[in-house]
Amino acid sequence: MESILLHEDRLFPADEATRQVARGLYQEIRHLPIISPHGHTDPRWFAENSHFTNATELFITPDHYVFRMLYSQGIKLSELGVPRWDGGATESDPKKIWQLLADNYHLFAATPSRLWLDTVFHDVFGLEEMLCPANATHYYDVITAKLQSDAFRPRSLMDRFNIELIATTEGALDSLPHHAKLQGTGWEKRVITTFRPDDVVDASREDIVDNIAKLGTITGEDTSTWQGYLNAIRVRREVFRRHGATATDHGHPTANTADLSKRECEALFEKVSTGNSNAQEQELFRAQMLTELAGMSIEDKMVMQIHPGSFRNHNSRLFSQFGRDKGHDIPTQTDYVNALRPLLSKYGNEANLNIILFTLDETTYARELAPLAGHYPCLKLGPAWWFHDSPEGMLRFRHQTTETAGFFNTVGFNDDTRAFLSIPARHDVARRIDCRFLAQLVVEHRLSETEAASIAKKLTYDFAKQAYKLG
Amino acid sequence: MESILLHEDRLFPADEATRQVARGLYQEIRHLPIISPHGHTDPRWFAENSHFTNATELFITPDHYVFRMLYSQGIKLSELGVPRWDGGATESDPKKIWQLLADNYHLFAATPSRLWLDTVFHDVFGLEEMLCPANATHYYDVITAKLQSDAFRPRSLMDRFNIELIATTEGALDSLPHHAKLQGTGWEKRVITTFRPDDVVDASREDIVDNIAKLGTITGEDTSTWQGYLNAIRVRREVFRRHGATATDHGHPTANTADLSKRECEALFEKVSTGNSNAQEQELFRAQMLTELAGMSIEDKMVMQIHPGSFRNHNSRLFSQFGRDKGHDIPTQTDYVNALRPLLSKYGNEANLNIILFTLDETTYARELAPLAGHYPCLKLGPAWWFHDSPEGMLRFRHQTTETAGFFNTVGFNDDTRAFLSIPARHDVARRIDCRFLAQLVVEHRLSETEAASIAKKLTYDFAKQAYKLG
Amino acid sequence: MESILLHEDRLFPADEATRQVARGLYQEIRHLPIISPHGHTDPRWFAENSHFTNATELFITPDHYVFRMLYSQGIKLSELGVPRWDGGATESDPKKIWQLLADNYHLFAATPSRLWLDTVFHDVFGLEEMLCPANATHYYDVITAKLQSDAFRPRSLMDRFNIELIATTEGALDSLPHHAKLQGTGWEKRVITTFRPDDVVDASREDIVDNIAKLGTITGEDTSTWQGYLNAIRVRREVFRRHGATATDHGHPTANTADLSKRECEALFEKVSTGNSNAQEQELFRAQMLTELAGMSIEDKMVMQIHPGSFRNHNSRLFSQFGRDKGHDIPTQTDYVNALRPLLSKYGNEANLNIILFTLDETTYARELAPLAGHYPCLKLGPAWWFHDSPEGMLRFRHQTTETAGFFNTVGFNDDTRAFLSIPARHDVARRIDCRFLAQLVVEHRLSETEAASIAKKLTYDFAKQAYKLG
Repeated sequence: MESILLHEDRLFPADEATRQVARGLYQEIRHLPIISPHGHTDPRWFAENSHFTNATELFITPDHYVFRMLYSQGIKLSELGVPRWDGGATESDPKKIWQLLADNYHLFAATPSRLWLDTVFHDVFGLEEMLCPANATHYYDVITAKLQSDAFRPRSLMDRFNIELIATTEGALDSLPHHAKLQGTGWEKRVITTFRPDDVVDASREDIVDNIAKLGTITGEDTSTWQGYLNAIRVRREVFRRHGATATDHGHPTANTADLSKRECEALFEKVSTGNSNAQEQELFRAQMLTELAGMSIEDKMVMQIHPGSFRNHNSRLFSQFGRDKGHDIPTQTDYVNALRPLLSKYGNEANLNIILFTLDETTYARELAPLAGHYPCLKLGPAWWFHDSPEGMLRFRHQTTETAGFFNTVGFNDDTRAFLSIPARHDVARRIDCRFLAQLVVEHRLSETEAASIAKKLTYDFAKQAYKLG
Repeated sequence: MESILLHEDRLFPADEATRQVARGLYQEIRHLPIISPHGHTDPRWFAENSHFTNATELFITPDHYVFRMLYSQGIKLSELGVPRWDGGATESDPKKIWQLLADNYHLFAATPSRLWLDTVFHDVFGLEEMLCPANATHYYDVITAKLQSDAFRPRSLMDRFNIELIATTEGALDSLPHHAKLQGTGWEKRVITTFRPDDVVDASREDIVDNIAKLGTITGEDTSTWQGYLNAIRVRREVFRRHGATATDHGHPTANTADLSKRECEALFEKVSTGNSNAQEQELFRAQMLTELAGMSIEDKMVMQIHPGSFRNHNSRLFSQFGRDKGHDIPTQTDYVNALRPLLSKYGNEANLNIILFTLDETTYARELAPLAGHYPCLKLGPAWWFHDSPEGMLRFRHQTTETAGFFNTVGFNDDTRAFLSIPARHDVARRIDCRFLAQLVVEHRLSETEAASIAKKLTYDFAKQAYKLG
Repeated sequence: MESILLHEDRLFPADEATRQVARGLYQEIRHLPIISPHGHTDPRWFAENSHFTNATELFITPDHYVFRMLYSQGIKLSELGVPRWDGGATESDPKKIWQLLADNYHLFAATPSRLWLDTVFHDVFGLEEMLCPANATHYYDVITAKLQSDAFRPRSLMDRFNIELIATTEGALDSLPHHAKLQGTGWEKRVITTFRPDDVVDASREDIVDNIAKLGTITGEDTSTWQGYLNAIRVRREVFRRHGATATDHGHPTANTADLSKRECEALFEKVSTGNSNAQEQELFRAQMLTELAGMSIEDKMVMQIHPGSFRNHNSRLFSQFGRDKGHDIPTQTDYVNALRPLLSKYGNEANLNIILFTLDETTYARELAPLAGHYPCLKLGPAWWFHDSPEGMLRFRHQTTETAGFFNTVGFNDDTRAFLSIPARHDVARRIDCRFLAQLVVEHRLSETEAASIAKKLTYDFAKQAYKLG
């Protein structure tokens, strides 16, 4: 019997000939192992392998995709139990919160959140009817009960989900206790970290002076000097590599890079490390550091990911109450052509450099990113990101980048998620959409079916392993 | 017999399965009453209920969509009888002008103007053959004759068109005589005004000093002071509300907002109100006023519409001859994320604030507008506007906003037109395209048919009434 | 038997009804003569009518589309035999280079380069199997052998390709020897030049002072003065017109225009012509010159083409080794609305002015270019250009410009290519995509089939002849 919640042909195009080809391509790749080279799951889950608590704490309170949509329609974050920074009250009854989601589930019609949630509800928990006010309690109880069984502990789910490898993301000062705990176990190579040094690079952070000092303490380097600071970062990169990291990640507001003289760097660092920099200097420091970090990537072969273009914490009142990552980061216009030039002029032709570029500004796909990746040997394009990690977003990515960059300058899919249970759902969307895109090329006689099948496999599995040096 | 001019399945996609679903959805909503919450029809028509004169004065000389296309191909506005500012000659033979349209009707192939005109010709006047040089006189005569009958007077047409409510737009200094005339009649609640204070807010206007003085005179407030000026605006808002207004409208060149201190406001207003402001100060004044007006909206619950991003009167020579609204307003790049932040930091989480955002810069749909509306409770997205009020434009709007903002952060359709007779045609395009978009989601198993039908009704009727607080 | 390499229905949509209409439209126009009003073929080929040498020198070393993709995947330009500026070594064995292309032909999947190459291989050389490592030698030998026959000399190919007219592009200082050689022959009217004065207008070029001096020498004008310089350009325009030119071309970094006083022009020219201008003055000079050149176009009726928005020679290291046009020109954001206003304020309503606008920034299609072309009588839109000269790029162009600008403010197709043999392939892509777009309008009842057929012919042939005043 066909499930109402989830159709086997979902996301395939209506045209029967195209759908037939898409189905055929998808059958060949749907069960390939999942490579998740960029994401934000908690390594504690895999190290401790404890049970998840309940449906609400799993699906609502940590998921900014979910609660921002509810917030946009007038539901307060405190009604949703979102944890607060300011010590104010927040709802603590998980069943009451779950009912709120159910009562407002219609808001998510045609959003990727709905697609992911429905897929998890159906595929992981065996629920077959769409979530609605009437079945909210049943949903909550089924999910929460199953979470108590061993089959739903993180490692079991990771096997069940056929996740071959998952990368988490940690700050430069993180002591990596959870990854350390996994060392020597069979999980060591399946759960790896990623080096994200924004905490010691982003000079606009209030804690930057402290962070640079801490960086000195934990590395034994003198981070009061430019050279000592760079050395300390090198030391941390090496530690991260020993915990499996093959990549770094950089979430700057812009893609700006710089190529200053040593003397200029020293003067700038002096201001930054003593808390005396202004906004312009902070931007210049981040820009210079992208170039420095590219140089380090050439040395140690770590793959560099650049994720620019988010205006973080746009809603200042909400930020003061609830803090970061609460659904109010908004994309902005992002330039790559001028911004990346200092870095590319210095290192753009280096054989050992690998940079993966992401964007929240889709206008750059055809105009800037595909032409850059279609020329520079060091550049590849990350998949459609964040707001664009969606069926329509992925289609726009492929339609707008493929003709200039080809498939081989892309790196497969990233789920980029904190929502562990949704990982298979997210990869499944990407697989379906890639097969759909390829099927269109086949039926329009722009690509042979044989070639399409080969490319589908690469997009699903090979490119991620190669681009992130995972193999 | 199938009409050549107008196919029953127009605008539905070719794929038979999708078309079938689209048809089904459309049948359920096609005859719902029209809510027209934003437009530019002349309230005199409804107050006086006089006959329209002839085909040319109805369809050509007032419609900048029509004459700009003819102008772009070398036909002079004076040949088209467009009224002049400069007292120069302009064609006065309506039949000659009509013939020019007919001779050049091929220019409109695949434009929305053609779709609207054909629909009016067919549905309102019963014409079945496409307008062409040979039938120009027949067309002119049929239309002009019918306009003389009572069935074609404005109120009759409003009934025939099943228009439940229409909002006109008036400047802050307008004495609203036509709306006053309707008060106490059955039409009072069907024809309402909208408060558009650009004439007293846009400090770059040549008549700004006079307008602020007039504002004082008609309100009895001392508009030589900042506080008196704000009070005067409050008084006018109250008058507009008594004439049915539930919304305000703001057509600034940018979406910039500001949040200045009272002292800064007073100093700035002093310059503006005495005609001593420069371009930068004028922009800052408009920016500050958007924030002030948002504050007033919280007080009096009027819905705020922001329509930014048009470079008005781009063709300076034409402007000096023919004036405003002559088809030479050109969209520009528009920023929302930085521009709106001062206003949103102050008022973005207020439960009583309702702002509807429009854009002429489609690049902001997925990048800025959907993420903003998908977070801030005060923000909703107006429909595809002006140049984008077209089948392709509407599809881009839905494809690029729905995944992040959902349907429930949108407000249904606005026809935004001066062309009264085209209102049913314009709403019909929106209804067909929405059904088409929903049908695609259904056949791709992204939405159930039941849910799609419910959403189709909301997009057509409910959302407009709710968003504009119409009853 | 159906060829594996090239399907008769390629690029048509899957939907059977739409494909049927597309096929029908295409049958009527596929064999129309080719008008190639803008391109970069070498006039020497047509003047001397010599044999092309071999497959590699024809298809790889001169084609930046091809070698940039190989370069992006780590293959050095020197391995590909690309000629160097710096005297360094470069591969000279054409068979070895050809094998490299064959070994990496999969990189081009779903790119326009692949489509063009496959079409040439199949239609011009009769090859039926896709290029691959195993058949590389066979390919090389077949192509190279055929190139030695008379049927493959440039003039024979031009006949075979049914090219009615081809325009080349030459700098202002070019003495046009090859076009001169064709004068008085039957080819005189088939191979014409285009006036591209960037070499004497772009003040940022290192050779600008020399070039302005040379301009004086060859014209006998005193180019040390502003007036003499303008006169000299007029003289060269006249010479170009005598060699068939009907158009000029301008490849500035931006679309900026200016309207300075004579005194300001003289002062600026003094700086430029003596090599004392800074970057800002160079930009202002280019801006002023676009307006001057528009004035000259009104005088001599030459059609003006503006091709802005490319960041040339982005990869500075590669530039120093290999020079210009090596696949590292990257598009940038381009403004038209503000940039063109000084020129349009001066000349925008002149009946004798014809400007064709191109863009590399697709965000301007619906936002700026279509509204501008849909109003100003002097403006028309050039086809999708360079990176966007591709199936998806052309579809985006039509979908985003047609509703506002219509078809009649566009100018047909430009192949813009150095790759002579690919010209029929490129025009064929445009013809197929235009028919596909029209077919969609037909099946969605937005356009009658009769009207679509008429427009297809105009897009293929008539518009190019009219827009470029070709007879």
